[in-house]
Amino acid sequence: MREVTENIAGYGYGSAEVAASPVSLQDLELLKITVGFTPDDERYLRLAGEVLTGQTHAIVMQWRGQIIAHIPHLAQHSRALDGSPLPDYLAASNLRFEQWILDTCFRPHDRQWLDYQHEIALRHTRAKKNRTDGAPSTAYVPLRDAIGFVAVLNDTIRPYLASRGHPSVDVDGMHRAWCRSIQLQVALWARAYPSEEW
Amino acid sequence: MREVTENIAGYGYGSAEVAASPVSLQDLELLKITVGFTPDDERYLRLAGEVLTGQTHAIVMQWRGQIIAHIPHLAQHSRALDGSPLPDYLAASNLRFEQWILDTCFRPHDRQWLDYQHEIALRHTRAKKNRTDGAPSTAYVPLRDAIGFVAVLNDTIRPYLASRGHPSVDVDGMHRAWCRSIQLQVALWARAYPSEEW
Repeated sequence: MREVTENIAGYGYGSAEVAASPVSLQDLELLKITVGFTPDDERYLRLAGEVLTGQTHAIVMQWRGQIIAHIPHLAQHSRALDGSPLPDYLAASNLRFEQWILDTCFRPHDRQWLDYQHEIALRHTRAKKNRTDGAPSTAYVPLRDAIGFVAVLNDTIRPYLASRGHPSVDVDGMHRAWCRSIQLQVALWARAYPSEEW
Repeated sequence: MREVTENIAGYGYGSAEVAASPVSLQDLELLKITVGFTPDDERYLRLAGEVLTGQTHAIVMQWRGQIIAHIPHLAQHSRALDGSPLPDYLAASNLRFEQWILDTCFRPHDRQWLDYQHEIALRHTRAKKNRTDGAPSTAYVPLRDAIGFVAVLNDTIRPYLASRGHPSVDVDGMHRAWCRSIQLQVALWARAYPSEEW
């Protein structure tokens, strides 16, 4: 594994406090076939991880500072209900966001990974949002916004993948693998959502 | 609008038998902001539509014949429960699939479009699957596979977008617009799903 820093508050990958995913490893394998995820993608994600290491801060600053911060219906989820900033919440969740980039690239798709996907999703629903950080923020991030924002994540990651001078065939390969992994993850996240939090 | 052929069985865009989407036009506008969909994307989708007109048969044959047909847990949704083929069902839904490509490119994002998104989604759930064609097939397509297969749709469309010799900046623009539209649509489809059909 690879860490963006030591001791990321609330980052519980592999720990006992993480939810158990109701999804079986067999269903995960089938879902990987649906998204077209192959061993080649696994190799390209490792390469992407090498390329993105050291860039995760800039990436999350772009996502959170340059994009989400200017979209009120998204920005509110990292703010207090009156719209005032919650710097500690934002800082901690930004670090976890950075770590999620590396986990996407480096973590094997095993039971721990599946459980942490479920944990990530629950932390966007009423079940667990705000709890990790004790933050007085919105009750949940609607599923539609979680699914929709994937288009932004996929689009904006590409220049970072290309920034280390790899041949375009490898940049394409890294990007394809990234898009497949994110689509796989968001499909899993949908499992944690009750219908009324669409 | 643009049609792949006259009289597509079960294609009810804009007709009275189509479901009414519970989503408001205001929520649609917010969701378009989430996926980053802009007026530029609208223009690029029109260009994509011009490029893809005449290629929709080849595209759907690739999706259905070369990809889905070889993935049993996806292929079953166009087959009878004993696995035998349903040629009429497949043929009709293939034509609607072709038309969906053109609708993605040419239809404005208005109330009719929103309603038809909901209708498309319902036709993948227990509520309406098989009904249009009277087909004795699976009860529903799990939401996870609908979300996951987007990665395949997005990846495989690109060579078709590039096949008419447009400069790569325009192919990139068409592809970006396509990916945003599909992510928008699948986010809307999730609204029609009850949790147990994940």
